[in-house]
Amino acid sequence: MGGDHGPAEVVRGALLAAQRLEVDVLLVGRTRELRQHIDEMPDNVTLVDAPDVIEMADKIDAVKAKPEASINVGMNLVKQGEADAFVTAGNTGATLAAALLRLGRIPGIARPALGMVVATSEKGPTMLLDVGANADSRPAHLIQYAHMGAAVMEFSHGIHSPRIGLVSIGEEDSKGSQLIIEVNRALRASDLNFVGNVEAGHIPHHVADVAVMDGFTGNIFIKTVEGVAELFFDELRRAVKLTPWNLIAGMLLRPELRKAQRRLDYAEYGGAQLLGVDGVVFISHGRSDARAILGGIRAAGEAVENGVLAHMHEIAERVPARGLVESSAANGNGEDAQDSG
Amino acid sequence: MGGDHGPAEVVRGALLAAQRLEVDVLLVGRTRELRQHIDEMPDNVTLVDAPDVIEMADKIDAVKAKPEASINVGMNLVKQGEADAFVTAGNTGATLAAALLRLGRIPGIARPALGMVVATSEKGPTMLLDVGANADSRPAHLIQYAHMGAAVMEFSHGIHSPRIGLVSIGEEDSKGSQLIIEVNRALRASDLNFVGNVEAGHIPHHVADVAVMDGFTGNIFIKTVEGVAELFFDELRRAVKLTPWNLIAGMLLRPELRKAQRRLDYAEYGGAQLLGVDGVVFISHGRSDARAILGGIRAAGEAVENGVLAHMHEIAERVPARGLVESSAANGNGEDAQDSG
Repeated sequence: MGGDHGPAEVVRGALLAAQRLEVDVLLVGRTRELRQHIDEMPDNVTLVDAPDVIEMADKIDAVKAKPEASINVGMNLVKQGEADAFVTAGNTGATLAAALLRLGRIPGIARPALGMVVATSEKGPTMLLDVGANADSRPAHLIQYAHMGAAVMEFSHGIHSPRIGLVSIGEEDSKGSQLIIEVNRALRASDLNFVGNVEAGHIPHHVADVAVMDGFTGNIFIKTVEGVAELFFDELRRAVKLTPWNLIAGMLLRPELRKAQRRLDYAEYGGAQLLGVDGVVFISHGRSDARAILGGIRAAGEAVENGVLAHMHEIAERVPARGLVESSAANGNGEDAQDSG
Repeated sequence: MGGDHGPAEVVRGALLAAQRLEVDVLLVGRTRELRQHIDEMPDNVTLVDAPDVIEMADKIDAVKAKPEASINVGMNLVKQGEADAFVTAGNTGATLAAALLRLGRIPGIARPALGMVVATSEKGPTMLLDVGANADSRPAHLIQYAHMGAAVMEFSHGIHSPRIGLVSIGEEDSKGSQLIIEVNRALRASDLNFVGNVEAGHIPHHVADVAVMDGFTGNIFIKTVEGVAELFFDELRRAVKLTPWNLIAGMLLRPELRKAQRRLDYAEYGGAQLLGVDGVVFISHGRSDARAILGGIRAAGEAVENGVLAHMHEIAERVPARGLVESSAANGNGEDAQDSG
């Protein structure tokens, strides 16, 4: 029921997925309303009733207050093993809250992260994480993000020994906030293929396969990319309308420019995976149209097939938050594991 | 002597300024080297010898270790009242260190900020601050940045009651890190024209006259804008080369696209002002060419004429860090005023 376009686009995307992918779709929401958007019910689509709706404007408390909301019902399907993954176009905060409430964190993971795979560069995809699950971060969080991102790129995207970059305000190890300096030190000492600090402006040039950031920075980054891309294409549309010659020029360049636009329009990507919760959950952007929903379902299916969840459990055991916390306790971050429930 | 292009471009920019603006230029550096770039010495240009040079790769300690470096000699000219302002294309960290060492902070200002005025939107300029003076920030810092930015936009850019926006990951007052939530509360209670939280992606659309950010976020923001703009124009150059028709199309659209490019190329702007130190200091981007240096000298001259420094002193008295610190001491930020020397 989530998403800026309401259920119509989500249903359309789900029907596309049922048609094009080898998946069974459980469509969760107010069944009467959902049915209005379906002309003919495919065999591999099942409606699951969820009478409540969490609105974009609702507070996070609504997740607890409305157990019958589609987001809760969907998460429960995953919890009970009736679904392999949950895909939503709803509000990020509500999804995170529902995932923590219904599925829970993987024990040993300090904080879930929202990881988004983008293909801004032609050279290959980059996973950005965290793009907004947590606004306040501690070293242990980012260190685990690096491991989680590496696992996804290795097992879901087939990139051997993915290059991990830590997003900072300079490439030298000494550049950045205290948080970044501490994480840099830990990643240097890790078994990851850590390429050091990377500048935000270089991410689109594919300097790393995984770009590790705190959620505040990650969100600023993707919103800035979107904002600048939008501005540019607005300018282009304006320029094209000025003279008939410009219009022709615009038509000539259009196919190539559309490619660049698609690579920069992060809203069109399949969505972001919530890593570190005990289930496969994808959040499509609030602006998601049917194509983005289809992309989200495809990505969720691949995550299930590639056993991403098992890899997250393995990371929780191999680099548990508690171990990372101990090493940074001297810096006053000792409360890490405790406050992360 | 600073800047990626070495002294040649800086000298060229200074000579342009001497020619076009009503200023006297004191050119600080290795005089023998500087003279090589000057064919005919204008009357309003004086060379000031500074035998040492701080290289881009030097550590910050070099500022103390090399008192005869151009950055130190230049700052001293301001300190002694022999210059009204100092403009440099050198390393930001070294400039900040030299400014603090030679000029000092204005008493009552917790942290200097690097403020950059950009004109991304046709609707008018926006001051971004802090774009990288401080990687770790506390509420009192950002609250003072808001006041300093407001003063610059009001007195140097003639914007009555400038709209102050706080950059966060959502527009609601509750969205953001603990730092942002606390600053939001303080700005709501202030006498500033606070328009609330603004999203990074909306800054180019002129949602505020002053966009307040911590220095880490600010640096991520400007680097991302630059990176995306670069990527886009690389794509455009590539597209134009594909066919002769595309080449013609590119030529037709070029004048309009150049305008957009200039508005997005923050490196081409006049530079950023170091606000909160006891003197007028502008830092041009490391990539600065002669035109950027000219812009920096023009902006510095305007700042002097508009009495920006006196306004900063006034802010230090009206909203001193100590007062702001007390109000946020309950949140464990009590060490603010003490650690800021």
